[in-house]
Amino acid sequence: MSEFSELLARYADVTARVGANVQPGQDLLVRADIGAAPLARQIVRAAYEAGARFADVFWADDQVALARFRYGSRDPASFDYAPAWKSEVLAQQIDAGAAFISISSEDPDLLADQPVELVAAAQRAVSRHAQPVYERISNSVTNWTIVAAATDGWAAQVFPDVPAEERVRRLWQAIFAATRLDTPDPVAAWRAHLAELEARAAALNARRYDALHYRGPGTDLTIGLVPGHIWCTAGMHSAAGTPFVANLPTEEVFTMPHRGRAEGVVRSSRPKSLNGALVDDFTLTFRDGRVVEAHAARGETVLRRLIATDEGSARLGEVALVPERSPIARSGLLFYNTLFDENAACHLALGMALRFTLEGGKELDAAAFEAAGGNISSVHQDLMVGSAELDIDGIRADGSAEPLMRAGEWAFDVR
Amino acid sequence: MSEFSELLARYADVTARVGANVQPGQDLLVRADIGAAPLARQIVRAAYEAGARFADVFWADDQVALARFRYGSRDPASFDYAPAWKSEVLAQQIDAGAAFISISSEDPDLLADQPVELVAAAQRAVSRHAQPVYERISNSVTNWTIVAAATDGWAAQVFPDVPAEERVRRLWQAIFAATRLDTPDPVAAWRAHLAELEARAAALNARRYDALHYRGPGTDLTIGLVPGHIWCTAGMHSAAGTPFVANLPTEEVFTMPHRGRAEGVVRSSRPKSLNGALVDDFTLTFRDGRVVEAHAARGETVLRRLIATDEGSARLGEVALVPERSPIARSGLLFYNTLFDENAACHLALGMALRFTLEGGKELDAAAFEAAGGNISSVHQDLMVGSAELDIDGIRADGSAEPLMRAGEWAFDVR
Repeated sequence: MSEFSELLARYADVTARVGANVQPGQDLLVRADIGAAPLARQIVRAAYEAGARFADVFWADDQVALARFRYGSRDPASFDYAPAWKSEVLAQQIDAGAAFISISSEDPDLLADQPVELVAAAQRAVSRHAQPVYERISNSVTNWTIVAAATDGWAAQVFPDVPAEERVRRLWQAIFAATRLDTPDPVAAWRAHLAELEARAAALNARRYDALHYRGPGTDLTIGLVPGHIWCTAGMHSAAGTPFVANLPTEEVFTMPHRGRAEGVVRSSRPKSLNGALVDDFTLTFRDGRVVEAHAARGETVLRRLIATDEGSARLGEVALVPERSPIARSGLLFYNTLFDENAACHLALGMALRFTLEGGKELDAAAFEAAGGNISSVHQDLMVGSAELDIDGIRADGSAEPLMRAGEWAFDVR
Repeated sequence: MSEFSELLARYADVTARVGANVQPGQDLLVRADIGAAPLARQIVRAAYEAGARFADVFWADDQVALARFRYGSRDPASFDYAPAWKSEVLAQQIDAGAAFISISSEDPDLLADQPVELVAAAQRAVSRHAQPVYERISNSVTNWTIVAAATDGWAAQVFPDVPAEERVRRLWQAIFAATRLDTPDPVAAWRAHLAELEARAAALNARRYDALHYRGPGTDLTIGLVPGHIWCTAGMHSAAGTPFVANLPTEEVFTMPHRGRAEGVVRSSRPKSLNGALVDDFTLTFRDGRVVEAHAARGETVLRRLIATDEGSARLGEVALVPERSPIARSGLLFYNTLFDENAACHLALGMALRFTLEGGKELDAAAFEAAGGNISSVHQDLMVGSAELDIDGIRADGSAEPLMRAGEWAFDVR
């Protein structure tokens, strides 16, 4: 077995055993582009070795999707159709108890040359059917995970200066490094890593901080946390009680900021890819939880458009802590893929808050959720602010401060 | 565009426009193994160019199917499961009006090393769900077709003596040659070819022969035809009235022999692949429609087992006429794939008769169908008997004979 094949097999093992945590006797459905067949097949192998009854792949093909734009009718009305069965099958299989693994391998530029209104119409048509799957996934009806596979288009974006024939190999190397596969037993390494993240979340939950205070070059920001906030990891439990990890890699612990309580200024530490455009070296000034000033050395227009999307897009929906020693942070790469980039550094999300990060949050109606400090928006964009020069304190209700991170690293013990 | 790409595109054009005959505004579902992606994508392109609203591919993967045998439980009970949704989706899409194209690209040896009882259990489980699709296809509820794509495993069987890296290219060449793509306008060439086959079927239907008389080296056989027999081609009409061609290539006109009326002896002209074993250089002796003697220089046991399958497997269910100038016959290749091999030479099928080759045949119950001369069996195996030395006469009810084929070529005019 080549080194690449060996690493791909380990990635699949971690995906099936730690990510989705496929159970003996359980079925598995993998959603993959046919370009990701080598990884998808390895995941099927790993699932059977974990005891799956029936492991199958629900294939898609970027090129078939593109053909509609290249050769089909240009009439926008024709793009108003999307087949319902693809979502129905996923929902049915989840309801029947199947685990679910999604392989992310989108070419971000696939539809870049196509008319925006046709792309939007096609996406709307797909969205109309997606709700049943989205609900099951977000409510953890089954054990599921998302992982990534390198493709030509994605690799070209991450490594524009690397010769074309080298890029995919380089991106796979980066994925493998980011996914902690360089140990003899990656499954055990991942279980240990997740246990540490969960211990940090538990410690933070026990401390009941009222706010966080960020300090670094260009940054002096205090973010209030909602009462009843829950520090979470990507580790979850399905309705049947099976633990799983919703995405691999994962490096973060995260919780819910109060939509009305952010004061000060924060400076970005890494560029952000927003709808295909790059926003870099930007500062945001908050008052009463709201962005009141935004500047960017690059992509300021795109950044301002994001902030102006709706009432909630100028407010925070998530605060996440990621140490600088994480493999993704150390790589120094911009992956142009949230799965990796959000795990590269401490980040703040503008937009929609995650209801499971608030006690009882799933049961509240919109007004009660906002009254509790939860933010509502049609967007949710992670902005990287962590660096080796960032300090973060936890602020208790009595105003006392405790170090959470120093110089980008954890500053409290959990052992 | 390379020559290969050009020929593949033409094959796809013929498949979409002549085979399935995808209509403007119609949806299309292609069933393909991911190894056949280049052809499947071209078919999608051709369907959109023909005016399809939405063309999609329902992918499968040989390697995922194999993984179950290699890595899954060896408990036969676990192979008793197959997902119902794959057939349900096809049936739904057909009912909603979608055209259907199946790409045949099976590796005949894929499961050769797996335990026979597990393979059989898996096939039974799939069959339990297949009936709704089978019924819609065999009743031409929609316009559909079957074509083929070359794969490594298949090519290895057809060209065992060709270097491995050359085989798939050679098999594609053979498929393209067999499919009459070496003309500037293959779509027009196919329409003309089909018109000739249909004219021959019409002429034969007008003549109302009582029997056919085969004469050649080792062959002197008279086969009675059922009253009300219909000479057919692969050209059909969907419930909506759309003409389509059920398989490409096609070279045959065929009808229903009387299960009780075959007298004499026939000698094979080409080897026959039967469940992975080769039967070659064989003779069958018929009395009162039944095989009473069978000899083969190779594979006699397998041949005898076929004949002994059930009451109908020793009797004829189809007679088909194919001229020796057909491209497949000229290639001299054994494709180990019925799509090609049945179109290489005049053939007789042992086993199940096709009900649509008898007037009113679909409405008869089993007893009435047999009483009318129709044969019932669980098998249907085409045996090639045509050669450049075969003569066939049509015998009228009054005993007079007319030449149908001489030296393997058509011996009557249809213009």
